[in-house]
Amino acid sequence: MEIDLAKEYFSSSVSDRDRAIFEGGITLGSLYHQFVGTPIGNKKILEKNITESALTHPFIVDAKTELKVEEKSEDSPYEYQELSGEMMKIRITAEFGSCRVKMGIKYMPEVDFPLMYISEIND
Amino acid sequence: MEIDLAKEYFSSSVSDRDRAIFEGGITLGSLYHQFVGTPIGNKKILEKNITESALTHPFIVDAKTELKVEEKSEDSPYEYQELSGEMMKIRITAEFGSCRVKMGIKYMPEVDFPLMYISEIND
Amino acid sequence: MEIDLAKEYFSSSVSDRDRAIFEGGITLGSLYHQFVGTPIGNKKILEKNITESALTHPFIVDAKTELKVEEKSEDSPYEYQELSGEMMKIRITAEFGSCRVKMGIKYMPEVDFPLMYISEIND
Amino acid sequence: MEIDLAKEYFSSSVSDRDRAIFEGGITLGSLYHQFVGTPIGNKKILEKNITESALTHPFIVDAKTELKVEEKSEDSPYEYQELSGEMMKIRITAEFGSCRVKMGIKYMPEVDFPLMYISEIND
Repeated sequence: MEIDLAKEYFSSSVSDRDRAIFEGGITLGSLYHQFVGTPIGNKKILEKNITESALTHPFIVDAKTELKVEEKSEDSPYEYQELSGEMMKIRITAEFGSCRVKMGIKYMPEVDFPLMYISEIND
Repeated sequence: MEIDLAKEYFSSSVSDRDRAIFEGGITLGSLYHQFVGTPIGNKKILEKNITESALTHPFIVDAKTELKVEEKSEDSPYEYQELSGEMMKIRITAEFGSCRVKMGIKYMPEVDFPLMYISEIND
Repeated sequence: MEIDLAKEYFSSSVSDRDRAIFEGGITLGSLYHQFVGTPIGNKKILEKNITESALTHPFIVDAKTELKVEEKSEDSPYEYQELSGEMMKIRITAEFGSCRVKMGIKYMPEVDFPLMYISEIND
Repeated sequence: MEIDLAKEYFSSSVSDRDRAIFEGGITLGSLYHQFVGTPIGNKKILEKNITESALTHPFIVDAKTELKVEEKSEDSPYEYQELSGEMMKIRITAEFGSCRVKMGIKYMPEVDFPLMYISEIND
């Protein structure tokens, strides 16, 4: 990308660090709400699909997805699993200009919440 | 499945044919609204993920997904594609008791609508 | 609707009853996967939005949504609720030609599953 | 909120500005992927639902939603509209500690993309 077509829409006070964090936050929110509720047929393929979707977002340069899916008995056709926030462990790296930021989603049992967090900022 | 735990919740007038059509309809509506908007990183993996999700639904015995994704120039990081109804071509087979039904989603250009249709009923 | 533009895409063996059940099933699957995961700000508005979306689907003539949202303490900004299958109680009526079908989604505690069921068929 | 339960999961280099931008980005990504594809029955109720969902996200203190829905003829039951990125105009304000950030989504015709942008940072 030589020219950032979107630049004129951003406040001039937005730094590379701001953009990297912003783009990463967008990506985590997107992944969560796009995939939550997905019936889990094949865990590996769902993980790959989430990872590939993450990497498609602008300025995302690395992504890793691990889903914690517990085995469920299959006595009934109704007992299939759907992807929930508790199962998601996703890590991504966003890069904008001179700044790289590592971020992720993981379940925070203390508050029963799939937390989105920033683990490292390099600018 | 020896006993259908859900049976008591259904009207007694519901036939095998009704159930097969119902379960297939649910599955098509689910797939559409679960996956529409997904950023397309890897077409093959997204197709597999949709197929696997379809097969996870109760009473779905066969599924096939083909996505019509046109190439887009990638001059800008914003030019990624998201899954839309126009791109979806999905076929599934639902089976309940003695009845098998073939159904699908395909784009209907006449009305600019991703149509869900029933192609074959065998009872 | 004088002419059903979609008719040619359906098998000729599809009856009014089949279509009413099919369209209702699609709608239930759609509502579930469209709205599951929605952060619940205002229960009444979310209920109305689900009901309005249901009525937009082809051949849906009646809809009612009740969400069972338990109060949660709000000691932390993270403790907001998201719509889950357990909370959904939705009833719809689909009508195609001479057939009306009542259907719904409700949580089935026996199998911890949001069941979609058919309660009445009038043809 | 007296104690931020999530703080320990964040890098110690994360500032109030970083967090406000991050939480706002998450919210925009979430809203987009949660609501894209929603069948539009009642524009006003859908707008309210999106706004209420935005305000439920942690640290979002203000939100406004305007959907650009063009009228469509209704000659056929299939011609209903679904929410697309082109229709979305959403503005939110995120606040964390001493920093307030204004952000939004709007369609960017130059690249046919629903852009998420930061319009103002006050720290």
